[in-house]
Amino acid sequence: MLSAENRQIRLARRPEGEVRPGDWEHVTEAAAAPGEGQFAGRTRFISLDPAMRGWLDDRPSYLPPVGLGEVMRAGSVVEVTESTHPGFRTGDLVAGTFGVQEHVVSDGRGTLKIQPDTASPSTFLGALGMPGMTAYFGLLDVGALKEGETVVVSGAAGAVGTMVGQIAKAKGCRVVGIAGGAEKCALLTGELGFDAAIDYRTENVRKALRTHAPDGIDVYFDNVGGEILDAALACLAMHARVVVCGAISQYNATDGVRGPSNYLSLLVRRARMEGFVVFDYAPRFTEAAREIGGWIADGRIKVLEHVVRGTVDDFPRTLQMLFRGENTGKLVLELV
Amino acid sequence: MLSAENRQIRLARRPEGEVRPGDWEHVTEAAAAPGEGQFAGRTRFISLDPAMRGWLDDRPSYLPPVGLGEVMRAGSVVEVTESTHPGFRTGDLVAGTFGVQEHVVSDGRGTLKIQPDTASPSTFLGALGMPGMTAYFGLLDVGALKEGETVVVSGAAGAVGTMVGQIAKAKGCRVVGIAGGAEKCALLTGELGFDAAIDYRTENVRKALRTHAPDGIDVYFDNVGGEILDAALACLAMHARVVVCGAISQYNATDGVRGPSNYLSLLVRRARMEGFVVFDYAPRFTEAAREIGGWIADGRIKVLEHVVRGTVDDFPRTLQMLFRGENTGKLVLELV
Repeated sequence: MLSAENRQIRLARRPEGEVRPGDWEHVTEAAAAPGEGQFAGRTRFISLDPAMRGWLDDRPSYLPPVGLGEVMRAGSVVEVTESTHPGFRTGDLVAGTFGVQEHVVSDGRGTLKIQPDTASPSTFLGALGMPGMTAYFGLLDVGALKEGETVVVSGAAGAVGTMVGQIAKAKGCRVVGIAGGAEKCALLTGELGFDAAIDYRTENVRKALRTHAPDGIDVYFDNVGGEILDAALACLAMHARVVVCGAISQYNATDGVRGPSNYLSLLVRRARMEGFVVFDYAPRFTEAAREIGGWIADGRIKVLEHVVRGTVDDFPRTLQMLFRGENTGKLVLELV
Repeated sequence: MLSAENRQIRLARRPEGEVRPGDWEHVTEAAAAPGEGQFAGRTRFISLDPAMRGWLDDRPSYLPPVGLGEVMRAGSVVEVTESTHPGFRTGDLVAGTFGVQEHVVSDGRGTLKIQPDTASPSTFLGALGMPGMTAYFGLLDVGALKEGETVVVSGAAGAVGTMVGQIAKAKGCRVVGIAGGAEKCALLTGELGFDAAIDYRTENVRKALRTHAPDGIDVYFDNVGGEILDAALACLAMHARVVVCGAISQYNATDGVRGPSNYLSLLVRRARMEGFVVFDYAPRFTEAAREIGGWIADGRIKVLEHVVRGTVDDFPRTLQMLFRGENTGKLVLELV
């Protein structure tokens, strides 16, 4: 394995607007050997996340930006190929932030050894990974969800959205999902058990929210920002909570983010809008994974994955799928 | 008194943008006599509040809009001239929502009998009235202010702003006020004891906030919205609270409210933005008035009033002063 080649995707230039193929550099270097107390691994699954767009901009955020010339940051699952670390053995599956590359070396810090009998490895990038944790803590902790409330989630067919809706259902709430396209909407109300779905491409979202949430929205979980956020703000129940998780509609905006012009609804409805970063909840990930794992086991939560099979060279076009809304559920690149 | 004339200001048409003199109707009718269990009163002081602009629009809010042809809603202090109500005697001073008119009749519900020895009557429209209550509960309850934190307030020289800053100082916080004009700023840092003041007319607010709140804003109390809200959002400390009290910069906007484009700062800073309506705190007004009264008595809070002397016919132009930023402290029309 020592002489193996390590194919990597590095950031070549900072994108303006949508990320383009030319923003990346495809590099091949020799795979490194593990030092004392380290393991080497071969990448099996790479996570694609909306947050990646933010990491590419050179501005202060909750994580430093990916540097020019650096391997693109990404969560992944690797299989251990060689180890001098007492905690990891050849064949172990490990989740971590290993980046978009074929081979990794790690001292194990900040990683999670996967028990493969609990769920398929890619689940640890989705339902049991950051998207699942994001949905769980955003909804229950930031959103302070109570049984019987009405929850609306945008980006509902995405990795976080599918989990938000299903966790809310598991908690005894009414759930309305907003997604793009009839197929996604059918999936939400069919397989995933949402009470209603709104196709923002063909429906007037504000009117549809009045229909499907006639008593107002108690918790709005926002993944998209823009016009949909404004429509939701116009339909809040008293003392509503708006959970700001992301704004995928705005990430590629080159003329500035569009602010929610209906924000004064917070005043009239005595409501709050609150942001969070999932990493802050790291000490409680085990607790969340246990509860989510239970729901997966008893069938209340369905794991929805959109797996693209390919090589690391397929990363750029797979990332584009995410911002074009071409995925349903958690988007993963499986290296074959 | 029965034959007295009652001059009133009624809403003639719904304003577009800034309220104009032609939006009002000046009406004279005979003053009504009090029925059984009622009192009649002569208006002494009329309150002018930014919230009045919202009451003039025909859209759902926390209070119904003022109807066309109705006497304009306003808080005021009246002196009882005649009474068959056991709780009120001739000469009593009473605060209530009596409207812009010279003479009123009331059964006493929703009113407050003023003990004139505690403070001057107009104080019950300002520091001990709705503006004081708004500052108190917005800052301490919604804003969850803690000693030692950094507070920034916009509209700082207004009725609510002057109280927000002084209450925050009384609670041991660092206070930065944003106001329009050198004179107002000098007043904030001089007489009112603010730690710093920013003149939004001549300074770059964002840069000035970085200077005066170098560790970030813990509580931002927003009375104005617009660009100043965006500047504050860009300068939040971790876990900051943005208290949405009003948006005077946007009330007269005819091309729609400008949403805060920096709202994603809530995410990065794990911050929240929350609205409230002071009437919800009515059961606790006595508690607040007691604490504020104590601070006034011991000199920690200075009551700042801008009193215009005139007749109810002066109401329209006095209201314009408010939206043009021509007042410092609580704006009151005293009928002479």
